[in-house]
Amino acid sequence: MNDLRKHFVVEPGSKVDLSRIDPGDTSRIGTKEEARKRLEDAIEIDGLQDRLFAEGQRALLIVLQGMDTSGKDGTIRAVFRATGPVGVVVTAFNRPTPEELAHDFLWRVHKACPRRGTIGIFNRSQYEDVLIGRVRKLAPAHVIEHRYNQINAFEDMIASSTKVLKFMLHISKDEQAERLKARLEDPRKHWKFDPGDLEDRGLWSDYMHAYEQVLSRCSTELAPWYVIPSDKKWARNAAIASIVRRTLEEMNPRYPNPDWDPEEFRVV
Amino acid sequence: MNDLRKHFVVEPGSKVDLSRIDPGDTSRIGTKEEARKRLEDAIEIDGLQDRLFAEGQRALLIVLQGMDTSGKDGTIRAVFRATGPVGVVVTAFNRPTPEELAHDFLWRVHKACPRRGTIGIFNRSQYEDVLIGRVRKLAPAHVIEHRYNQINAFEDMIASSTKVLKFMLHISKDEQAERLKARLEDPRKHWKFDPGDLEDRGLWSDYMHAYEQVLSRCSTELAPWYVIPSDKKWARNAAIASIVRRTLEEMNPRYPNPDWDPEEFRVV
Repeated sequence: MNDLRKHFVVEPGSKVDLSRIDPGDTSRIGTKEEARKRLEDAIEIDGLQDRLFAEGQRALLIVLQGMDTSGKDGTIRAVFRATGPVGVVVTAFNRPTPEELAHDFLWRVHKACPRRGTIGIFNRSQYEDVLIGRVRKLAPAHVIEHRYNQINAFEDMIASSTKVLKFMLHISKDEQAERLKARLEDPRKHWKFDPGDLEDRGLWSDYMHAYEQVLSRCSTELAPWYVIPSDKKWARNAAIASIVRRTLEEMNPRYPNPDWDPEEFRVV
Repeated sequence: MNDLRKHFVVEPGSKVDLSRIDPGDTSRIGTKEEARKRLEDAIEIDGLQDRLFAEGQRALLIVLQGMDTSGKDGTIRAVFRATGPVGVVVTAFNRPTPEELAHDFLWRVHKACPRRGTIGIFNRSQYEDVLIGRVRKLAPAHVIEHRYNQINAFEDMIASSTKVLKFMLHISKDEQAERLKARLEDPRKHWKFDPGDLEDRGLWSDYMHAYEQVLSRCSTELAPWYVIPSDKKWARNAAIASIVRRTLEEMNPRYPNPDWDPEEFRVV
């Protein structure tokens, strides 16, 4: 497959109009059968993660953002199905605790950044503070406004040891309706449903505008945003697995050379 | 398969003689082909973990201990290969940092305990402080002596919200020799080898004695130890997957009932 990164990346400095990106587009991925067969990306990610861990010098941070039901957990399961939990740390950012609120908005985020050698995955992230924060006016406008630059500066700083990839899981309002209905109909999915989700749904266009601000202002060379059409789960998973794999291949982590001579040791 | 727990558990209060437990024993597991085919344990663990997460009331803590090369990482990969990193947190306890040393020995352990709804896996644990701590005399004898009771009291406390399973991966000294040689011969495995491993190997019988103390004194109803014959990786993985599955089934986590009425909501 060709390098999907260039198709989905938000070019730094460009202006994003989400209404021009079709959430149902699968043209870059191929057929569902082809995508299903592409197990090799997940397997390659596993091997690359092992090298990253062995090298112990750099980290990878994957940020997942999207409207409710866009499939953040499902993406993690699919992309890291071969990798397992060793060396992969998932952090879900929910409503901040009183302790977190007593600090600046990046404090809890910084604490959760992956250590060298590991892959960190953020299910929601610092961007909530310019998404729900903006839409629901959880802070004064000038404070929110300042945060875009603060986030860029923060990501620039962690980029010294961490490769950052940010994915917006782009679904349509119609697709969300289907998925919310499924949650309401299946008792095993009730726990995933929060009546507040419907309020956010009512603010859909405000959220899309807030996402456009994020994508336009916070996609950088060191920490690019990718907009992933996500109405089709299989296309979403295939796109992200491919981009994660390519990124790790480019990082090219290496098994370290020991500071001892293997010839010197005898196991007795 | 019958309930393997009763075959491998250390009965609380019993005295363990590791020389009487054959690390190569596979008689409880069956043939390698049978074990390989038993994918269903890993798949069931995945489904049970989802229910545990949804319920959000209880945690599972899995402690893995064993001599170098006994396969702690490999066990995690195999047992949780279907589960993935969401809701599973692995903590490796290595040499304590200055900050950790400035606290009591359980401080860093407590911080790493799994939150309700999740599975925590400890690669090494509080038991290092009565294993290497005892063998290498890292603290005065009376301090080490006190720790067994302190660990029991600690585990009793966390057991109010957390089910605790402790596995000793029991390998033979001969099998360790093979695995260490493999590490020395494969450049991709050099990073796993530490010349200090050979020193620990030289203290094998001291370590076995320290393990026997641990197993005899710290296997409790609420936090039992299991001794898992681990010379055969496939038998080790099958035994632990089966015990984890049975334990989760017995915990029987349930999807919670919502505090709202599904009939009341319309997705528009």
